[in-house]
Amino acid sequence: MSDVNEELRTHDRRDQPELLMPEAVLSRTAADLASKYAGVFSPQTVERYVFESYTALRLHAKVHTHLPTLAGRFAADRLTALAQSQGAVPKTVPEVLFICVHNSGRSQMAAALLAHHGLGRVHSRSAGSAPIDAIAPIVIEAMGEFGIDLGSEFPKPLTDDVVAAADVVVSMGCGEACPVYPGKRYLDWTLDDPDGQPIEDVRRIRDDIDSRVRELLGQLVPTTD
Amino acid sequence: MSDVNEELRTHDRRDQPELLMPEAVLSRTAADLASKYAGVFSPQTVERYVFESYTALRLHAKVHTHLPTLAGRFAADRLTALAQSQGAVPKTVPEVLFICVHNSGRSQMAAALLAHHGLGRVHSRSAGSAPIDAIAPIVIEAMGEFGIDLGSEFPKPLTDDVVAAADVVVSMGCGEACPVYPGKRYLDWTLDDPDGQPIEDVRRIRDDIDSRVRELLGQLVPTTD
Repeated sequence: MSDVNEELRTHDRRDQPELLMPEAVLSRTAADLASKYAGVFSPQTVERYVFESYTALRLHAKVHTHLPTLAGRFAADRLTALAQSQGAVPKTVPEVLFICVHNSGRSQMAAALLAHHGLGRVHSRSAGSAPIDAIAPIVIEAMGEFGIDLGSEFPKPLTDDVVAAADVVVSMGCGEACPVYPGKRYLDWTLDDPDGQPIEDVRRIRDDIDSRVRELLGQLVPTTD
Repeated sequence: MSDVNEELRTHDRRDQPELLMPEAVLSRTAADLASKYAGVFSPQTVERYVFESYTALRLHAKVHTHLPTLAGRFAADRLTALAQSQGAVPKTVPEVLFICVHNSGRSQMAAALLAHHGLGRVHSRSAGSAPIDAIAPIVIEAMGEFGIDLGSEFPKPLTDDVVAAADVVVSMGCGEACPVYPGKRYLDWTLDDPDGQPIEDVRRIRDDIDSRVRELLGQLVPTTD
């Protein structure tokens, strides 16, 4: 077997730290989340979510530096969604899920705008059927003009837990990728993709999303005054 | 709220059966698998795997008819991998994971060829960093010439459970998408992508993979006679 090991060692990638599965960090993250979700999910379930979320995000990532942190946030949000859909934690406000293809533009803007206008009366999530590595910088710029900071957000793949937790699912050009659970409302918004567009067009798309989001908010949370 | 429901109903997708999450079928599949994995995984873990696997496959699927069945097979294989990596079920032979981008050509051929030549002395899996909806027909044709039927195989996204279960990971142009666990061997094969190539070129790629697979097999399972 010495020849084998010799040949294999030539291709050994373990000396490239950025390629390593950060097991220690992910295990610590899982342990932290496991105490947070004690009584709701087993430590094994939480650990599965953290490692799965890391690998899923990594498939589309170009930079791996912050991935363990993002994986922890993604896993925590998915676990909350799962707990909501199972009735293990109360859902106090309507839950809206926005889905586009890359989760780098439209669905991120919509989720952020709904949260912005909703003032805690709704909760929003977003996901992509084929997420890319980062939010489009021009989208961050256009949202910055509204005083909304998308700088810490990141594209996430669509998972069944966030679909199951949603009361309203708004798709934006992701086709039939999103499975439909009974008992939810589905909307399909036809919007231009801001990717590669000049800032003027991105602003127009942003404003289009903004007016749709305000209308949806008015439907979900009727004003009483 | 009547206006809301009226407007939402206009976009209601629940009357399109192919879009519905097949909850009943997936729940039955999960219950079956839960008895198979009783004592190893909780019914909740198994159900999570089945629903997650369904949603993950669906993201890249064009036809949804057989998806619940494929999701059951994918979930079962992932659960076995997870049980192997945790030492909950014995791993009797070396486990090899082949990864390419689409899991529709190279990695499928390699996994099938290794299983074919391995005669039970190794086990192989394959996955893609960005799986597409089906195996390339020309790849099925080229493998058919070897008497190997890929007709029931399907592209699968890379998940951390199958990486964790592998002894050897062979990547074929998927870049850094694959996280590296310590204690494994990593090989990187440079191969042309058969997608869109004429049958002559696909045969050449198949034969190239075949000779590499035979060499790997010879290393993993030295012949004693």
